[in-house]
Amino acid sequence: MDYLDLMKELHIPSKSKVLLLVMDGLGGLPLTPDGKTELEQAHTPNLDALAARGICGLSTPVAPGITPGSGPGHLSLFGYDPLVHQIGRGVLEALGIGFDLHPNDIAARGNFCSLDKNGLITDRRAGRIPTEVGVRLVNKLQAIRLPGVEVFVEPVKEYRFALILRGEGLYDGLTETDPQVTGKPPLPVKALRPEAERAAALVNQWIDQARQILADEHLANGCNLRGLARDPGLPKMSEVYGWKAGAIATYPMYRGVAKLVGMDVLPTGETIEDEVETLKQHWNAYDFFFFHVKKTDSFGEDGNFQGRVEVIEHVDHVLPSILALKPDVIVISGDHSTPARLKSHSWHELPVLLWAEAMRPDDVTTFGERACMRGGLGHVRHVDLLPLAMGYAGRLEKFGA
Amino acid sequence: MDYLDLMKELHIPSKSKVLLLVMDGLGGLPLTPDGKTELEQAHTPNLDALAARGICGLSTPVAPGITPGSGPGHLSLFGYDPLVHQIGRGVLEALGIGFDLHPNDIAARGNFCSLDKNGLITDRRAGRIPTEVGVRLVNKLQAIRLPGVEVFVEPVKEYRFALILRGEGLYDGLTETDPQVTGKPPLPVKALRPEAERAAALVNQWIDQARQILADEHLANGCNLRGLARDPGLPKMSEVYGWKAGAIATYPMYRGVAKLVGMDVLPTGETIEDEVETLKQHWNAYDFFFFHVKKTDSFGEDGNFQGRVEVIEHVDHVLPSILALKPDVIVISGDHSTPARLKSHSWHELPVLLWAEAMRPDDVTTFGERACMRGGLGHVRHVDLLPLAMGYAGRLEKFGA
Repeated sequence: MDYLDLMKELHIPSKSKVLLLVMDGLGGLPLTPDGKTELEQAHTPNLDALAARGICGLSTPVAPGITPGSGPGHLSLFGYDPLVHQIGRGVLEALGIGFDLHPNDIAARGNFCSLDKNGLITDRRAGRIPTEVGVRLVNKLQAIRLPGVEVFVEPVKEYRFALILRGEGLYDGLTETDPQVTGKPPLPVKALRPEAERAAALVNQWIDQARQILADEHLANGCNLRGLARDPGLPKMSEVYGWKAGAIATYPMYRGVAKLVGMDVLPTGETIEDEVETLKQHWNAYDFFFFHVKKTDSFGEDGNFQGRVEVIEHVDHVLPSILALKPDVIVISGDHSTPARLKSHSWHELPVLLWAEAMRPDDVTTFGERACMRGGLGHVRHVDLLPLAMGYAGRLEKFGA
Repeated sequence: MDYLDLMKELHIPSKSKVLLLVMDGLGGLPLTPDGKTELEQAHTPNLDALAARGICGLSTPVAPGITPGSGPGHLSLFGYDPLVHQIGRGVLEALGIGFDLHPNDIAARGNFCSLDKNGLITDRRAGRIPTEVGVRLVNKLQAIRLPGVEVFVEPVKEYRFALILRGEGLYDGLTETDPQVTGKPPLPVKALRPEAERAAALVNQWIDQARQILADEHLANGCNLRGLARDPGLPKMSEVYGWKAGAIATYPMYRGVAKLVGMDVLPTGETIEDEVETLKQHWNAYDFFFFHVKKTDSFGEDGNFQGRVEVIEHVDHVLPSILALKPDVIVISGDHSTPARLKSHSWHELPVLLWAEAMRPDDVTTFGERACMRGGLGHVRHVDLLPLAMGYAGRLEKFGA
């Protein structure tokens, strides 16, 4: 039985409020074997006090050894097993730039590439052209028209762009054009099922026109399309958990993933204080809030240990104003680890803090990775966190008589 | 999604080296309630130092309460769920004697038995005849010829032997002859699917001839065939993990199981020192090594507590020369427990030690069962250990964007 089905079956109405506070990439590593992680290093009196009153543990975001991207990391925090509910790369690319993806759109991740005079790929990333060149090329490609569908081409970053087709009768189940090696030509898109034939034909027409338009470019005279996909049509949170869910996030990717599971995306500003203000404004109107803090991840990618420490301290600083709203259940964790030491996402477990009224507190008195190792939650999985929160929130009826 | 499929999809090339050190039957028990286990009793300064720098835990080999045989215990250490990937008993019997099983061979475990004048079984183990009698009987059975296939009969131990048929068009899906009780006759072999009809007919011909040859024997005048099976065709490690894997083991069974998952079996000697020498010789040529130490299990089966302690101390003694090779990831555990106290395999969890560069060390400073209970790895499963090692080895790309 899919766990989501169990939630659908058991959820009951409640006035309780659940807050999921996500510090993106929260899990860290010590820079030296006897050093502290970013979270351990941060001065966090408020998080520590909450850890002392709550219960802590370590959580595996997707599966042991697996480094999650932002999409799977968040889906699992939302209780959706990302190995079951996969989101196409094209959809994630569109969400990442804040594109307003419609349910029947086909979205692809595009990469500019370099072709030789025989049409064989010489560089899959077109010499990593700068973003401004990518923008100029995308502007040229926006001239392409296709019969019966709307076409959107949007720059992402450097050699990356997003292509979206909108219209009736477009289905996914499409192969990618990227042969993954140099010395071969981009491949035509093929339909993997009959319904996808129309989309395949249209995408191939687009590719032909793009080749002509890019022909006189020096570096980026070709392109590849990857991860051609539609919104996966995930079950919505209202249906799964029976709650009205609001998302507060400053970056498009996280607003986009929240939208895929049916959350209302609440308009907010740029800072954590703006986000707290948004939370206060909408507090009475929602049952569940997803509150996303981005910069713990950004500084991790940059290898900026101290930057991560300061973002965590910033969150600690605003925590009392969040607690003043009196949520019934709080879950604090991250979608994946992004240790400054690795300058990238990683597979390491995430520290988790759960606070609610009816709990057995453990001995943990500080919120940190090694303290969480000894926490009363033990080792859990991200997909179990919201169901657990549902239990603590009094939102699930008894299973069986 | 089968976890092996995820590994297949995500593995990337890397120069890192992973070592899986298996002390067979490592998990132990104290002889008295306040005593120490074999591993706790052993003086292991090198393992303890590695535990202090690494992360420890306890691991369930197959499932809670399940006592694994050597086949399932090792498959799970290799990341193959033994409840999904089952190896027939006949195949394990053939591997255990070092028989060079070909992919399309049918292998059976044979047991000599005693029959009364009506052909009913009076003793399913033929009075546990000594090995030399078994060998003499097998020599007689080697005279049997079957049309169109090669026949191999090999002694195993006491009343046990292996029968292998080699030829075209032999498929498994065959019933066993052993009625599992005395007072009944051996049953004919039946095909459970049409493709297996030819094999069933041939095996039944063999059984008829064997009955005639054994007719004048006193104790072992009949035999049963069990676990008639082919090589299960497991996905190979090169495909699953993308690495070149070498196996170093002194006993045929472990070399055989390693071969089933596509490892190269490296020729080695009889002692642990020989195995270390083999590891050194081949260090540059492989990405992954399975290093097997047998005697922890053998002494366990004998109830020899002190013998187990000394084998563990022996491994500890050679550990520095293994570490000098600078593996990037080391996993140390066993395939199952074989406590001297029980004189048999058992269901108890295994102590596990994982060491790699990018880790959060825990508080464990000695490698022992009770220290591992409080380790930072928590309670894991054998099938998760190699995927975790893949993460630490930098051999998996990000899952999802």
